[in-house]
Amino acid sequence: RPFATSSNMAKSKFEYVRNFETDDTCLRNCYIVVRLDGRNFHKFSEQHVFTKPNDNRALGLMTRSARSVMEELEDIIIAYGQSDEFSFVFKRSSTWFKRRASKLMTHVASQFSSSYVFYWKEFFGEQPLLYPPGFDGRVVLYPCNRNLRDYLSWRQADCHINNLYNTVFWTLVQKGGLTTAQAEDRLKGTLAADKNEILFSEFDINYNKESALHRKGTTLIWEKRDETVTKRLKLPNEEEKEVPVTRSRRRVEAHHSDIIGDQFWEEHPDILENDNS
Amino acid sequence: RPFATSSNMAKSKFEYVRNFETDDTCLRNCYIVVRLDGRNFHKFSEQHVFTKPNDNRALGLMTRSARSVMEELEDIIIAYGQSDEFSFVFKRSSTWFKRRASKLMTHVASQFSSSYVFYWKEFFGEQPLLYPPGFDGRVVLYPCNRNLRDYLSWRQADCHINNLYNTVFWTLVQKGGLTTAQAEDRLKGTLAADKNEILFSEFDINYNKESALHRKGTTLIWEKRDETVTKRLKLPNEEEKEVPVTRSRRRVEAHHSDIIGDQFWEEHPDILENDNS
Amino acid sequence: RPFATSSNMAKSKFEYVRNFETDDTCLRNCYIVVRLDGRNFHKFSEQHVFTKPNDNRALGLMTRSARSVMEELEDIIIAYGQSDEFSFVFKRSSTWFKRRASKLMTHVASQFSSSYVFYWKEFFGEQPLLYPPGFDGRVVLYPCNRNLRDYLSWRQADCHINNLYNTVFWTLVQKGGLTTAQAEDRLKGTLAADKNEILFSEFDINYNKESALHRKGTTLIWEKRDETVTKRLKLPNEEEKEVPVTRSRRRVEAHHSDIIGDQFWEEHPDILENDNS
Amino acid sequence: RPFATSSNMAKSKFEYVRNFETDDTCLRNCYIVVRLDGRNFHKFSEQHVFTKPNDNRALGLMTRSARSVMEELEDIIIAYGQSDEFSFVFKRSSTWFKRRASKLMTHVASQFSSSYVFYWKEFFGEQPLLYPPGFDGRVVLYPCNRNLRDYLSWRQADCHINNLYNTVFWTLVQKGGLTTAQAEDRLKGTLAADKNEILFSEFDINYNKESALHRKGTTLIWEKRDETVTKRLKLPNEEEKEVPVTRSRRRVEAHHSDIIGDQFWEEHPDILENDNS
Repeated sequence: RPFATSSNMAKSKFEYVRNFETDDTCLRNCYIVVRLDGRNFHKFSEQHVFTKPNDNRALGLMTRSARSVMEELEDIIIAYGQSDEFSFVFKRSSTWFKRRASKLMTHVASQFSSSYVFYWKEFFGEQPLLYPPGFDGRVVLYPCNRNLRDYLSWRQADCHINNLYNTVFWTLVQKGGLTTAQAEDRLKGTLAADKNEILFSEFDINYNKESALHRKGTTLIWEKRDETVTKRLKLPNEEEKEVPVTRSRRRVEAHHSDIIGDQFWEEHPDILENDNS
Repeated sequence: RPFATSSNMAKSKFEYVRNFETDDTCLRNCYIVVRLDGRNFHKFSEQHVFTKPNDNRALGLMTRSARSVMEELEDIIIAYGQSDEFSFVFKRSSTWFKRRASKLMTHVASQFSSSYVFYWKEFFGEQPLLYPPGFDGRVVLYPCNRNLRDYLSWRQADCHINNLYNTVFWTLVQKGGLTTAQAEDRLKGTLAADKNEILFSEFDINYNKESALHRKGTTLIWEKRDETVTKRLKLPNEEEKEVPVTRSRRRVEAHHSDIIGDQFWEEHPDILENDNS
Repeated sequence: RPFATSSNMAKSKFEYVRNFETDDTCLRNCYIVVRLDGRNFHKFSEQHVFTKPNDNRALGLMTRSARSVMEELEDIIIAYGQSDEFSFVFKRSSTWFKRRASKLMTHVASQFSSSYVFYWKEFFGEQPLLYPPGFDGRVVLYPCNRNLRDYLSWRQADCHINNLYNTVFWTLVQKGGLTTAQAEDRLKGTLAADKNEILFSEFDINYNKESALHRKGTTLIWEKRDETVTKRLKLPNEEEKEVPVTRSRRRVEAHHSDIIGDQFWEEHPDILENDNS
Repeated sequence: RPFATSSNMAKSKFEYVRNFETDDTCLRNCYIVVRLDGRNFHKFSEQHVFTKPNDNRALGLMTRSARSVMEELEDIIIAYGQSDEFSFVFKRSSTWFKRRASKLMTHVASQFSSSYVFYWKEFFGEQPLLYPPGFDGRVVLYPCNRNLRDYLSWRQADCHINNLYNTVFWTLVQKGGLTTAQAEDRLKGTLAADKNEILFSEFDINYNKESALHRKGTTLIWEKRDETVTKRLKLPNEEEKEVPVTRSRRRVEAHHSDIIGDQFWEEHPDILENDNS
């Protein structure tokens, strides 16, 4: 005859350990930014033979995964990504997960990572994923619109600087026949103007006409779009008829625009809440 | 001629936003526990037709993903999992990621999630994964061995209570012909002893002989195992010879034992560090 | 001959304990509020025979101590006090004490408490202070002007509610001849309107003409005031002459005005910084 | 007729600001140390003409204030002070103030500061206190006995190093006739052994026989002492009689002993709780 352990009693004896959890609620009325960064993506990109300086499949997969995060998690109003990083901004008044920082950032990291593997095939086709990649995350709070916009500007300025460098570097190597060491040497100490000049005068490339995806990164926002679907209606005389129905639906849309200046924000006035509300 | 924006200057103007990051270093000399929980796994398990009360494929995949986390992240000394949750314990003296809570928990969540999708096929074969699953995480600190062991005991006691309930519940349904509502009703207010009795007298099942994996969950630890490989040696006379070489290697091993009592800890004295060191 | 212990070596061996300190920097660009509350001031006020419902000596001493805090600590832009509590607001951009919460609140609590004892005599004359009083404190952050103003409004609304209650209560006791139990009973369930009515119809007291200090509490801000001092000047002919010199000096000034409405803030536009700066 | 504002309604409208407070509960099962440091005490000691290198009145006042803190606040098991600093250790299992760090440190800072002014006269007699002094504080957690003892050792090693330096420095100035600049020069680069040697060979001072208060600082602990009081008892025959009654009472006692080695802790085994409890 099996022995009945008093398991509920046992469990309650241990339950005090719950009190060691600490509260990490994010300060109210601040934007919550979760940023993810790929772990060892330099090595990852080499092992998966990413195109240099930009691999559109890899960028597409990052954006697809970010879209999956936005669609899954409530209250993300804007996301910005470039290279192997993506930032997600929760609205100021969000009460999602009771604003608990640990829940917010782990869920974003988890959803993004599982999506990255899940959608790999859509972008890399038959090329196999060699091992499960990792991303780490962090949470940062911004109290006002100016601070949040400066954060996003900081990331886009970073995108610009890196992409300009990488574009010249790989042009020197791929078209100019330099070794990577020589290219590095050539670029040491050069300013943005110098790099633009090298591209223009030596390779006839106008940097500003290069792909906006590469120069500006990817901004995801919710937008209302009209969508027309065909519906079958039953008429009074028992006949059926197909009718086009137009509805407005919120969808995540990608932009590759400048988000440092005011124009983007003026065109999308609903993203940010008023500061003094 | 392209216009050279002074991008480095622009970037440095925004860089002040880095100062909004807060330091979340974990208190020194404490065990750091990261626990992951599946998001909406009730629904996930139904959509993927998990066997009731336990699906060995799903449990295997959880353990495979946890093993991937342990092999990827330094300093995890023990991990314990059951159902759709897994806890990872970093050693007290770990300085991994400078003990930053956000980095630790997001990396664990990310690596686990990408592994879950990556290894899905190994456990579910041709049955497709319908969408990328999510896990959320948290960090808890435990200052001494007693507290840490009580935490692990708490999770194993939880495993026991749930598994006993689920075992009786699904036996009543699957073998006893009750509806789920009837089974729920039948179990209302019953103690562990009553549940054991139902299994034993009505279905001739001795609960304590049920699968240890289901009753005790899965404990992962690092263990040294001797491994014998065959090496080709060149002999002085230019001949080659195959020689068996035995080496001791650290490997992650799974146990399904009781970790509430002392025996497990006495058999593996290296897992915990001394309290007063 | 004395033995020379290698004390520096010894010390450095212990110095690792510094790493157990955690960083508690306050989020940038937020107002930092430190609020102090008297510990057991109910008992303290009885032992020191405070006048009911308000003791002007005690209120004066609170304000004197708060002024000492403002003059000693940089970056406090406004302070609000009532009863045995006082709130101090550091400007948004303050970098005082590197914005470390523990330093800010302990210094405020310490300076306030030592001042309370130091200035006791100025307000209570020969009546002795029986024992050193205690105050506890806390830090709260407010990201925008609206939140900060709502915090101050909350404290002033609290002042209003308590003072109205106490005024009626002690009038019923002191002038109406009720026992404290009877007065409490009488006021059970009454609204503000009822309390005003009791004062007006039974005691001919118009609450709104009662002392503003009691009804509105005390608001301390920095103000520029012209100050005229007499200076001796040497004239070219070697004579000396006394000349009046007027200078503008910043001083802490006390107000007993409404700070819930807009008027106070419009009259002192320099207190708050712009939200989106 | 006075207008009845709906003040309760108004207040509840603002009450949301309470949610901006963050939880700063100290991790369970850790020792909580609050350390206070005098603010600008170099200047304070000069303005109040403290004796060099040690002023016994000032040290006595620090200890008196610390004793006041220990008697007022529950759960402080040991306090250690030297120069213008004092550390207070709350017992591991303390639930005082719900272990909220802000409450603990502000109350210690407040009680200490008000006591410093309150007891000034007991130590400085007619010499006036010129202004209210300030102390700032911090909270540090230690998970185990070894860490806590190392913290206290660190402070006592600091006391030793500073006091040895100051003793030689002021002996060179006061007895050796050096200027402060010359004394500083003389001591540059000297080790503890050199300093002991200077004292011994030049001034016939054996440092180890100097005052233990100065060399070791002050340790305050709770101790049981027998106390005999005289009680009047009524005898059966209606007579009264005076009877001596001896009771054991807990009192704060001061020690000036070494707390780095084991002896002190072996003699007072009740101070520390067991690590693995």
